[in-house]
Amino acid sequence: MDGEKQAQKAALLKKLHSGPKILVLPNAWDAISARIVEEIGFPAVATTSAGVAASLGYPDGQRISRSEMLEVVARVARSVQVPVTADMEAGYGVTPAEIAETARELIASGAVGLNLEDVTGDDESTHVETNLQAEKIRAIRETAASAGVPLVINARTDVYLMPIGPEETRFERTVERLRAYAKAGADCVFAPALKDAQTIKELVKAVEAPLNILLMPGVPSISELEKLGVARVSIGSGLARAALGAARKVANAMFERRDDSSVFADAVPYAEVNRLLGRA
Amino acid sequence: MDGEKQAQKAALLKKLHSGPKILVLPNAWDAISARIVEEIGFPAVATTSAGVAASLGYPDGQRISRSEMLEVVARVARSVQVPVTADMEAGYGVTPAEIAETARELIASGAVGLNLEDVTGDDESTHVETNLQAEKIRAIRETAASAGVPLVINARTDVYLMPIGPEETRFERTVERLRAYAKAGADCVFAPALKDAQTIKELVKAVEAPLNILLMPGVPSISELEKLGVARVSIGSGLARAALGAARKVANAMFERRDDSSVFADAVPYAEVNRLLGRA
Repeated sequence: MDGEKQAQKAALLKKLHSGPKILVLPNAWDAISARIVEEIGFPAVATTSAGVAASLGYPDGQRISRSEMLEVVARVARSVQVPVTADMEAGYGVTPAEIAETARELIASGAVGLNLEDVTGDDESTHVETNLQAEKIRAIRETAASAGVPLVINARTDVYLMPIGPEETRFERTVERLRAYAKAGADCVFAPALKDAQTIKELVKAVEAPLNILLMPGVPSISELEKLGVARVSIGSGLARAALGAARKVANAMFERRDDSSVFADAVPYAEVNRLLGRA
Repeated sequence: MDGEKQAQKAALLKKLHSGPKILVLPNAWDAISARIVEEIGFPAVATTSAGVAASLGYPDGQRISRSEMLEVVARVARSVQVPVTADMEAGYGVTPAEIAETARELIASGAVGLNLEDVTGDDESTHVETNLQAEKIRAIRETAASAGVPLVINARTDVYLMPIGPEETRFERTVERLRAYAKAGADCVFAPALKDAQTIKELVKAVEAPLNILLMPGVPSISELEKLGVARVSIGSGLARAALGAARKVANAMFERRDDSSVFADAVPYAEVNRLLGRA
């Protein structure tokens, strides 16, 4: 992608975090789902690492390689005009230098933003120490500056999601981490699995940076989150799993009742899929 | 894949074409959709070229490269235990030697069957001459024999689908082509877009080979097709488009009404996606 155009897209994505409307991101998992999200009118496309991994045959949690993830991100970025932000899990590396390499390759893919989480495995023993995570964020910031593409960094802590540590200390530890991540150069901070409205409101004030909340059952509505001061909401693998759920339902009907009629009821027409991908 | 095991899977797929029950194939487009189809209980997984292409950002109709298609087929074949048959469009080549190379690479991917269609482009000028198409099928047959993996060849004519030539001659030309394809070594023959029950019944008798019919609106039900003697039915990109339709519907609700509740109503749970892909 043209560097100047990519820098403009990064600036546009960043601006979408400053309101007044909340940024809503229904994460895509491949090129056609990204085109559908764009066509609906969303001003940016985020990817879901779990959705991409599943499509390629991997369970979630950094089983997929950096290059496989970036190949899909590049396909998504080539398929849409709006800014693309990629879920890059824990950055597919351990050292700040490795994370900087991930950032360089991400820029080459055409994306202009990324999620970076602070656990590298399946349990809390893999929780990255705060200073090291901040160093990784600084490494991305510097790489992005050198490349002239101001990547929008969404820094995530998994304190609530995993969860990590005693419940009564989670808020405090989340604040501490997210403030450190913002200070290191994150444009937005992310606390997935936080559901309570009052706690979200307090976190918005405490972090002094745009806050991303994960949409999931039990979380306040999008409009309520906007009122609470949340800057950005995303759906994780929700949209991908909704698509798979629909496929399972109609395939089940074919298996159990030999009924294929439900397949076509809400399907995107064949010609429309081709139109979305540029075939007249 | 172990050669003997792959040969056994090919034999199993072939056997599924000889009744008494009709073989039902709800085509998958990536690893997780294939796992879902397998988990429901279908005895084989077919891929959809249009679905794979869309996922990778291409419109349908051989815009995707052979290597990109086979990479997805290999992921699908690695993800499931049941036999996999791949939609290989017109074979990603022009000469019988090129088609033989496609067959070699298909065997290396772990698949045990393929669809081969007789148009190479978007209009009837690309209809491959019958003898040349038969030569391509023979080339696949010979390649498969050499490799010791008896690939199940599903030979398709697009006379009805495109459609090609005067309507009153379509049945006769379809019979002529499909008989030639079966004689050249096809295990099954395929006439997509044929909908009329009486014509299907006559085609079953005329081709003297297992017949595949494409499920689409206006086609007899699966049980009716079984009674008519049809050996195999598939859904093309229908399942993929149903999944995309569901994603579009719930993403639309997020955009229009800021309502994300429908995302989770029928979604495959996160833990189940991981379980399907082997993560405990």
